Amino acid sequence: MTATSLPQSVRIREVGPRDGFQNEPEVIATDDKVRLVDLLARTGVPRLEVTSFVRADVIPQLADGPEVLRRMDVPGDVDVTVLIPNERGFDNALAHRDRFGEINCFLSASESHNKANVNRSIEESLTGLERVIGRAVGEGLRAEGVISVSFGCPYEGHVPPERVFAIADRLIAAGASEIGFGDTTGMANPRQVRAFFAAAREALGPEVELTAHFHNTRGQGLANVLAALEAGCTSFESSFGELGGCPVPAGATGNIATEDLVSMLHEMGVQTGIDLDAMLAAARAARDVLGRPLGSHTLVAGPVDWHDRHA
Amino acid sequence: MTATSLPQSVRIREVGPRDGFQNEPEVIATDDKVRLVDLLARTGVPRLEVTSFVRADVIPQLADGPEVLRRMDVPGDVDVTVLIPNERGFDNALAHRDRFGEINCFLSASESHNKANVNRSIEESLTGLERVIGRAVGEGLRAEGVISVSFGCPYEGHVPPERVFAIADRLIAAGASEIGFGDTTGMANPRQVRAFFAAAREALGPEVELTAHFHNTRGQGLANVLAALEAGCTSFESSFGELGGCPVPAGATGNIATEDLVSMLHEMGVQTGIDLDAMLAAARAARDVLGRPLGSHTLVAGPVDWHDRHA
Repeated sequence: MTATSLPQSVRIREVGPRDGFQNEPEVIATDDKVRLVDLLARTGVPRLEVTSFVRADVIPQLADGPEVLRRMDVPGDVDVTVLIPNERGFDNALAHRDRFGEINCFLSASESHNKANVNRSIEESLTGLERVIGRAVGEGLRAEGVISVSFGCPYEGHVPPERVFAIADRLIAAGASEIGFGDTTGMANPRQVRAFFAAAREALGPEVELTAHFHNTRGQGLANVLAALEAGCTSFESSFGELGGCPVPAGATGNIATEDLVSMLHEMGVQTGIDLDAMLAAARAARDVLGRPLGSHTLVAGPVDWHDRHA
Repeated sequence: MTATSLPQSVRIREVGPRDGFQNEPEVIATDDKVRLVDLLARTGVPRLEVTSFVRADVIPQLADGPEVLRRMDVPGDVDVTVLIPNERGFDNALAHRDRFGEINCFLSASESHNKANVNRSIEESLTGLERVIGRAVGEGLRAEGVISVSFGCPYEGHVPPERVFAIADRLIAAGASEIGFGDTTGMANPRQVRAFFAAAREALGPEVELTAHFHNTRGQGLANVLAALEAGCTSFESSFGELGGCPVPAGATGNIATEDLVSMLHEMGVQTGIDLDAMLAAARAARDVLGRPLGSHTLVAGPVDWHDRHA
């Protein structure tokens, strides 16, 4: 694939209602969450991660997940994803089986990060998630396995891609049809990303969907998107308003902003199915709810205006 | 050039003391300017745009340009650039001829933007700058011609690259050895940038230095850098702390941050000669002077730490 060979279209999963809302210091009111989810669901975004089934004492920000799922009004052509941390979470989610079609299970590519994040070894996490994914597929659900710190770990430094692919293999064997690779603390660079996605396709075969989840920690999020596109990646995760995504240290940015991603893709002629103005309206609504400026650039600058005012 | 063929090294011109300081609503004290210039001059950056010779009533923020030039202590291996708007500015600059080795002359690629910016037609600007460049080269100075809105104009929309190259041809014929292409309001996208720089090299020949000046208006600044690198561009302009760079509308970001640029390049193995920690220290000093958070991402997040803490 040459540098100028970009895909005609990509699929974006909006993760703000889960990844964004759970990182807010103040719990967002359920009414506001439902309204924002409904706005996002009408932007044309094909996939929407709405909430998670984590323990309410661990992440109180998402304790109202079941209520959001019940009250939201999402068109049938939008794939709703929920995050499932473990088998107990999956049991709880099953009571709302008719409200979502995809689950997202996650673990880390490094022992230290997995231990810090979920207090388990990678093997313990994998064993549990294999059961969850197997049961989910049995229920007719689609399963994404997300591997955090795939491009580098803040505790361990370099993470060998082979280790990441070995974890992906286990998740795929268990039934996952999509693997998400998380640049959890923004350590990836475009050269690495290009080699990584080429190797991942080689290692994991042509069938599994490979998804890039980049952070904008050092301003390089969209450069990594470009590199992934050039390596054939056509699935991305992002967050409206640039909400959420492991902002460490305090003040650091996390997820790439969906509207910045969409703006760049559309300007390059890569289609997303998303109405950028509608996505910006949703981000503005989130800004109003949160009452503070958000990290998104296009939210401030507005979309590129190619209108020829002298025509 | 394949997608993975990146240059081994690039040259960065730090433009913060001119492009950044002139966009600050409050005039920065001369003492602070001199201190910041001296810090920047010791980061390893090879080129430093220090000030401009515009009329003090037009840009009072840089009225102390001659004093900054006189008082700064810049090592001899750093190329000092000053911005020259017109022949009168050049006459004034000549009194400080021993303090700089490069001049930067600018005009816009669209009539509307040039009119709005300097109240002249492109032809009027070109005629004046040809004289300035000719005189500068006669004085043994190196001349860069910067063409604003090279990738799109907020008034006129699309700007044909052929029009940009025709302007560049005139500047080169007058003696400019470097042409900078400005994405003044952040309308460029990576696909366009890659084609642009390939075509520019073709149109302008192998001798002239082609410099990319990107803005991060919609978060895509470093993605455009990546595309330019892939098209063979090895010269970039950026601003420490993400200062300056035509922040329109209010709150929008302008220039790409030097430290974000350096972080990405170094992580990819592309050398700049810049000490990232020293550049971050200079940006922190600017933040302290300005007393507000700056747009730079790496300034908040810190450099990528690949140290293996378990080794």
